[in-house]
Amino acid sequence: MKKNKVITFLFAGLNSHEHQNHEVDLKHQAKCSPTFMDNFAVNSPTGEMNATESFIHHAMEIILEDAVKKATDVREKVCEWRSPEQLKELLDLELRDKGESESRVLQYCRDAIKYSVKTTHPRFFNQLYAGMDPYSMVGSFITEAITTSLYTYEVAPVFTLMEDTLLRKMIEMIGWDEGGDGIFNPGGSMSNMYAVNLARYRYCPDIKEVGLFAAKRLVILTSQEGHYSISKGAALLGIGTKNVYIGAVPFMVNATAGTTVLGAFDPIEEIADICEKYNLWLHVDACWGGAALMSKKHKHLLKGIHRVNSVAWNLHKMLMVPLQCSAFLVRDKTSLLQHCHSARATYLFQQDKFYDVSYDTGDKSVQCGRKPDAFKFWLMWKALGTTQLEQIVDRAIAMARLVCANVPVMDPEYSNVCFWYIPPSLRSVPHGPERWKKLHTVAPVVKERMMKKGSMMIGYQAHGDKPNFFRMVVISPQVSREDLNFVLDEIHNLGQDL
Amino acid sequence: MKKNKVITFLFAGLNSHEHQNHEVDLKHQAKCSPTFMDNFAVNSPTGEMNATESFIHHAMEIILEDAVKKATDVREKVCEWRSPEQLKELLDLELRDKGESESRVLQYCRDAIKYSVKTTHPRFFNQLYAGMDPYSMVGSFITEAITTSLYTYEVAPVFTLMEDTLLRKMIEMIGWDEGGDGIFNPGGSMSNMYAVNLARYRYCPDIKEVGLFAAKRLVILTSQEGHYSISKGAALLGIGTKNVYIGAVPFMVNATAGTTVLGAFDPIEEIADICEKYNLWLHVDACWGGAALMSKKHKHLLKGIHRVNSVAWNLHKMLMVPLQCSAFLVRDKTSLLQHCHSARATYLFQQDKFYDVSYDTGDKSVQCGRKPDAFKFWLMWKALGTTQLEQIVDRAIAMARLVCANVPVMDPEYSNVCFWYIPPSLRSVPHGPERWKKLHTVAPVVKERMMKKGSMMIGYQAHGDKPNFFRMVVISPQVSREDLNFVLDEIHNLGQDL
Repeated sequence: MKKNKVITFLFAGLNSHEHQNHEVDLKHQAKCSPTFMDNFAVNSPTGEMNATESFIHHAMEIILEDAVKKATDVREKVCEWRSPEQLKELLDLELRDKGESESRVLQYCRDAIKYSVKTTHPRFFNQLYAGMDPYSMVGSFITEAITTSLYTYEVAPVFTLMEDTLLRKMIEMIGWDEGGDGIFNPGGSMSNMYAVNLARYRYCPDIKEVGLFAAKRLVILTSQEGHYSISKGAALLGIGTKNVYIGAVPFMVNATAGTTVLGAFDPIEEIADICEKYNLWLHVDACWGGAALMSKKHKHLLKGIHRVNSVAWNLHKMLMVPLQCSAFLVRDKTSLLQHCHSARATYLFQQDKFYDVSYDTGDKSVQCGRKPDAFKFWLMWKALGTTQLEQIVDRAIAMARLVCANVPVMDPEYSNVCFWYIPPSLRSVPHGPERWKKLHTVAPVVKERMMKKGSMMIGYQAHGDKPNFFRMVVISPQVSREDLNFVLDEIHNLGQDL
Repeated sequence: MKKNKVITFLFAGLNSHEHQNHEVDLKHQAKCSPTFMDNFAVNSPTGEMNATESFIHHAMEIILEDAVKKATDVREKVCEWRSPEQLKELLDLELRDKGESESRVLQYCRDAIKYSVKTTHPRFFNQLYAGMDPYSMVGSFITEAITTSLYTYEVAPVFTLMEDTLLRKMIEMIGWDEGGDGIFNPGGSMSNMYAVNLARYRYCPDIKEVGLFAAKRLVILTSQEGHYSISKGAALLGIGTKNVYIGAVPFMVNATAGTTVLGAFDPIEEIADICEKYNLWLHVDACWGGAALMSKKHKHLLKGIHRVNSVAWNLHKMLMVPLQCSAFLVRDKTSLLQHCHSARATYLFQQDKFYDVSYDTGDKSVQCGRKPDAFKFWLMWKALGTTQLEQIVDRAIAMARLVCANVPVMDPEYSNVCFWYIPPSLRSVPHGPERWKKLHTVAPVVKERMMKKGSMMIGYQAHGDKPNFFRMVVISPQVSREDLNFVLDEIHNLGQDL
């Protein structure tokens, strides 16, 4: 376009008819464009980039100091317990009409960090995630700053390729020699629901269009120890929670590799034998135990996983990527994931694009926007290599066994260590229901005391007919022998008067 | 515990029987604990905190420079287009056994940013998100560093309260005077699926347990312009995509406030009249249009929203919070959200906790782990105040109208501007199928050229019987009048030879 000539060309609005188009004088347009529109100055962007930079810079310092250094320092408290009422008093939660100053906002950042639980602290053993990996954390900052969604290659080229690289690598580790398909999800519950949906779709593709109204009653088999997401999935997907264990027409079996509480592994080979015989979809919920595939020493726990139809594997648990980073992998090579979930939205998945649209992964997902979570794990893997990832797993399991060397617990299969603390007063109570009833009340009180002191965090629950016990999950390489010993000492400190 | 005394106390392993417990000599144990376990040094944590800090520090500098400053600089390219094959050559994607050096990892960070699309750039008009808000971005860094999950108050006290604050505020803006319930989700598709599930649960609670097998055929009503997540949800939930528009027993109506392509608003009041008459669940997909509730000038677009049963509202679209930040809100006050989704996992939702367990929000979700996305929006709201949030919305719509002042398009309802570019060669082609067929090929070529040049990004699609047209979405306050004019000039530059 020659800038000095008055040129005319045509734009047409969709809400007029295309043939009612007008000629537009671009030169004129540039001149007479208003400086204000609906009272907004439109000639320059709003906001002041220097102030923005200064704010981000200060906030980054706070994050590094308080959320990274202090949060992982064993001399600091693992939590700064406040009840909801106290915390509401301490934090100025109210959202107002008027914005607040940079210094106030930075103080909100400090307070939010201060009163948050330090899940990266060496004495946090409370969940199936713990510890701080700097590479995946930095990866997460980048994906948040480069905010984008993984539906099309066009808006997420780098992250699309990295997700693809990771999925291939994980499929290789599972042992699907002929490849497979997969997708990262907002968590393991979603991945498990994907498995239910794919199994159902393979069993009867018509259900996608006509629903379950005319279908025979479908049933999912899983173990008592399987994660609750299978039941949640059955409810959401219209199968019904009562159809999760028993009778009728089974269409899928869910095996668990690493149960939530005990860290137990279902025998995949034996289950695969039966599933192959009856042509049942076999899904492995390896959200927690999948990390053992990284370990030459422990991967036998998942022996037979190369024979299954699908796998859910969370990287934000044992492998320490910041929540969320969760993969769903499927052995099928007929684009089942795409066929099962696709809706073919024309505004995203145009088929007349100028690049290979097989790189547009969005229609494999039940979501629309989807975070590039894979990048976090990709960057971490690059930095650490498979060797160090393997060491994270091997060390965590070794540390768990070290705990067991000191308490009379059989070696756990994985890194969950479950045990009772029996305070001196209970030692003289004869074994029987009365003793168990009293034992049941010990862990909640010890937990309350550790939280209020902020000295450590470790979970508890009852299980089947067993009274409340502690579940200590060891994950982070930042945990030392001293931290393990501290846990036992501290439980005794906090519970000896009970 | 007196440190200098040999004390004995009891731990019992779960896999032994509780009564086979042993006395443990803690003093002895501390002394004789091994220094190595499975070949791992266990006396001290692995890793070198100084190196970690230095890495994070350098990475933060790169993020500030490349992913914030350069990415939002109008003089820089909006994308650095490479085909999948080229990008694979440029990036060293392979994951190896051995970890790589800090300088290599930092280079991966730079490359990932360089070849990513700059969605925060003032000339990115391609999706329903754009622009950079420093406060919510900093909030996202904090939630990633403080990696935790929103299932229980115990592990996410601060973020639980902030989510609660935001949900209440949003419910107030919707106009549910008697309050309501809600939850943040990984995206609007999930929020819409929640609506389908809750509507179904209210219609027939038994479906949660027994599935749809014995149910009457259920039907969802929505408009042709509704988002594809309603269909995806119908497929996932066992209702079937064919039961989305027509016949049988309707149990919910989905109204759309701000359609994806045209930015159109369904008339909520009129739909609510009918839904109230027939006792149908009325859900409003306000993922895109919900932001108008912030604006005194534009909230009339959602008139009647206080009468509906549920609302999906994404903060990561018009309100510029980094993906993901998406709320699902429900008017019901009978804990429907909890009843519909609960699985009562005992390892998380113990009822003998020492605090008010109504702050454990996890069982309202179909997920297990769930990110504290609300914090990002909370921090942004604190910093900007309602007033400036309102200005973001008002300015975006004003800017969209400014585009329309220059092309013959009727004022859009919202900030989607849809138009055709008619190159000079087409002006002499008579109106009719031949002209439309040629017009259909224009936008894909212009798009290819703008991507390869990296000068701007703006979407295109066909729609109904209409040939490919451009959809320009204006969001960010960083967009100036010059950027809007540039879009029209640039389309002409790139397409005048077609």
